[in-house]
Amino acid sequence: MDQPKITLDGYAQLAAEAFQFLKSTTIAQRAEFMFAVADKIEALGAELLETARQETALPLPRLTGEKARTVYQWRSYARAVASGLYAEARIDLPDTEKGKGDIRKYNVGIGPVLVFGASNFPFAFSTAGGDTASAIGAGCPVIVKGHAGHSRTSTIMADAITDVVSQFGWPHGTFSHVLGDHVEGTNIKIGAYLTAHPLVKAVGFTGSYWGGKALFDIANQREQPIPVFAEMGSVNPVFAFSQILEQRAEALAKEYAASLTLGVGQFCTNPGIFVAVKGAAFERFKRALAEEISGIAPAMMLNKGIYSHFEKNKNLLSNQPSVAFIAESQTAAQEGQGRPRIMATSADSFLKNDVLSEEVFGPFGLLIEADNYAQLLDVAKQLKGQLTITVAGTSEDVREHQTVIDVVKDKAGRLLFNGMPTGVEVVYAMQHGGPFPASTDPRFTSVGPDAVKRFVRPLAFQNWPDEFLPAELKNGNPLAIHRIVNGVASAEKVSHK
Amino acid sequence: MDQPKITLDGYAQLAAEAFQFLKSTTIAQRAEFMFAVADKIEALGAELLETARQETALPLPRLTGEKARTVYQWRSYARAVASGLYAEARIDLPDTEKGKGDIRKYNVGIGPVLVFGASNFPFAFSTAGGDTASAIGAGCPVIVKGHAGHSRTSTIMADAITDVVSQFGWPHGTFSHVLGDHVEGTNIKIGAYLTAHPLVKAVGFTGSYWGGKALFDIANQREQPIPVFAEMGSVNPVFAFSQILEQRAEALAKEYAASLTLGVGQFCTNPGIFVAVKGAAFERFKRALAEEISGIAPAMMLNKGIYSHFEKNKNLLSNQPSVAFIAESQTAAQEGQGRPRIMATSADSFLKNDVLSEEVFGPFGLLIEADNYAQLLDVAKQLKGQLTITVAGTSEDVREHQTVIDVVKDKAGRLLFNGMPTGVEVVYAMQHGGPFPASTDPRFTSVGPDAVKRFVRPLAFQNWPDEFLPAELKNGNPLAIHRIVNGVASAEKVSHK
Repeated sequence: MDQPKITLDGYAQLAAEAFQFLKSTTIAQRAEFMFAVADKIEALGAELLETARQETALPLPRLTGEKARTVYQWRSYARAVASGLYAEARIDLPDTEKGKGDIRKYNVGIGPVLVFGASNFPFAFSTAGGDTASAIGAGCPVIVKGHAGHSRTSTIMADAITDVVSQFGWPHGTFSHVLGDHVEGTNIKIGAYLTAHPLVKAVGFTGSYWGGKALFDIANQREQPIPVFAEMGSVNPVFAFSQILEQRAEALAKEYAASLTLGVGQFCTNPGIFVAVKGAAFERFKRALAEEISGIAPAMMLNKGIYSHFEKNKNLLSNQPSVAFIAESQTAAQEGQGRPRIMATSADSFLKNDVLSEEVFGPFGLLIEADNYAQLLDVAKQLKGQLTITVAGTSEDVREHQTVIDVVKDKAGRLLFNGMPTGVEVVYAMQHGGPFPASTDPRFTSVGPDAVKRFVRPLAFQNWPDEFLPAELKNGNPLAIHRIVNGVASAEKVSHK
Repeated sequence: MDQPKITLDGYAQLAAEAFQFLKSTTIAQRAEFMFAVADKIEALGAELLETARQETALPLPRLTGEKARTVYQWRSYARAVASGLYAEARIDLPDTEKGKGDIRKYNVGIGPVLVFGASNFPFAFSTAGGDTASAIGAGCPVIVKGHAGHSRTSTIMADAITDVVSQFGWPHGTFSHVLGDHVEGTNIKIGAYLTAHPLVKAVGFTGSYWGGKALFDIANQREQPIPVFAEMGSVNPVFAFSQILEQRAEALAKEYAASLTLGVGQFCTNPGIFVAVKGAAFERFKRALAEEISGIAPAMMLNKGIYSHFEKNKNLLSNQPSVAFIAESQTAAQEGQGRPRIMATSADSFLKNDVLSEEVFGPFGLLIEADNYAQLLDVAKQLKGQLTITVAGTSEDVREHQTVIDVVKDKAGRLLFNGMPTGVEVVYAMQHGGPFPASTDPRFTSVGPDAVKRFVRPLAFQNWPDEFLPAELKNGNPLAIHRIVNGVASAEKVSHK
């Protein structure tokens, strides 16, 4: 049976209608829905993995892991939503002597959310990814603009969510899936059109700076501006201090090479630059890194566009003045494969040439050699906003270079001590989002249950009878959540009114 | 001794330097500072009140109340900051079996904040008002652009804060105070210049739509966009349902008249429009309201600019087609005085004429008569974002008109049941901020301790030794704050690492 074709305006309208329904759901109901989506995705088998493999060239073990992560996201966000943490319920009881009313506040969904699929995570950051899970957890309907690089994968995931919508009897507009480039018969991009649509109230995006910034600008120029949560990547610098470099040059080289080439370097937390003060230890690091990189085979990148950008940007940076070749994979790359390469430059050149701080999406690392710590500090100061900054050091190093630590705290969302930045845990304490241009809004994370916060706003009720209050705010606390009552955390009932 | 004159760039630079210091303060230290500011303001005597009275024409009892409120704001925000609520500390302990690292996150100040003084609250929303208190609570230095309407009052308040900065030995740039219109020798407004300044990281503003929107646009067009929290007022509609109108027409008229004319109508929560279905009860309401308004004397408005805007906008709305005169204060107004007036129109006219939904800042009320509830619903649907919406009704009214309630929930930050919207309590549950254009960011409040949230961002630490972690995240929990440890709320120490 053919469905009548729904227009983009139609999807927006359906989402707005579904929002009226979702407003009436409790956190417990939304959590139940989210667990059902997790189960449904978990049950998707070989067809999903094989389709994604064909569309993204990502190997099956990686895809299997990403699928498990996606399921985990739905479940952990569901638990967080059910806990009431994101309701942020506050109750101030009346004080008739002082003429103070009864005021209660909790978080409600912000409205329909437009989610863009990301090229490099066909499951975890796409159609059924963290943005969709967190928006639904917040009580917001979702319209997904599926990524063209994996449209069949996107459709399988969309169908899974749609099945759960039907199973729960929720409105169709709870979740919609749109594919394609342009609005029919126009040269307006679908994503731009929906971002500008008055019924869309927030946007989630993971991708390039230019893509994210374009959406951000459209959203701010609307008659009613809306928030855009665009995670736009960064170069994730590693600063290695002298003592650790002296102690661990070879081990650090191995770790850096592994992180830089993981997933053919196609992670937004890929450590694209490595900064240290020159000297014998840095030379040891370089030699060991050259050996590592030489032995790491090229591998297929996600798609032709990403491959050609990688080639172009790798060569752009490699051909800058005062940039020297250090090493490259010894295996020749086939068309479409990312061939790992390391270049090096002086801090002086880096400070003078903005091109050198551009992200190269893929397995490309730039070593920056500072003459001394004053210059290394200048490099830190000049950095733009980053998702992560890694400090490799001993405790003594950190004590000695506290000024560097103070500076990098302003530049990133997540600071690592030793270790490497790839691998973004789905936990409460995760911060995935850094000062602009790493993301458009560093006050929020796109990974971890706190991602839900992006899509809520507080709504206060003054002097409402208990029967009309949402469950989160009722005297009896039927959801048994933690609330702040007269300024004090409490999971108890309240007895006024 | 003459101080060398500091330029605007100099103030921004001082603030950036002070931020490096404030980053190292704990929540307990900032709370102590805030209590000291509260004490200092509390000790300011007749000179402050008399200066403010001269500059704003606000009566002394009102100013005395506002001063107490301002002191209360500093203290209640200090208590909230000290409680650790806004640190939002989360700790996920390592799991070596699963290869998971130790990740901890807490909120840090976003950087130097530019605060604009508001004309209508010389204490509570100006130099030493809620924006300044919440920014400092968040760990952010503040540059205040004092309001020209009360520059001497502003200077007294600024001096009080500066004294506390000196007393604590904190950097001068912790708090700066700027007066004037334009950058010397240019036609660039000081506020615009500072909003565009790369070292300024957020803006707090309370005032007109045009002022707030201009700052919002400047902030979004920066190379690094920054958040602007502009509270731009609204018309705060009151919807009165049939049963309550029948039962309480005269009482409601008294309450509405009192709220509408409180402080010469110069509140952003002033209930500028009143909507009900026509009929005998609405006629009774109108007669009673006319009598009330007739007896309320005009009073001096804050300044000439506000008075002339009031006159202009009152007449603009009064002279629209199908707008009928209902009542006016029987006392003639002197130059500069706001003379209360009530007009009425049909819902049909209101729906067709956008001018009628414009805010008139001052004691002006527009009654909207709907033919029936379908039309009243249309009025609700057409409303722009509001700070508040008030529902006057019995429980039966609410049950009968749930669709209206559903619609107004999307349009406001605070929903009142009976009562009137003027009077914004400084409590946790307060939401002062509504969907655009009531404010630029409805996800935050500018009143109540939650105002602090506007000026923080999360910063995550991965695998850092305990000695380098901020107090909020240390194993020993030296601040004894509530944290979320492995997903569970806890005020205990953690024992790993």
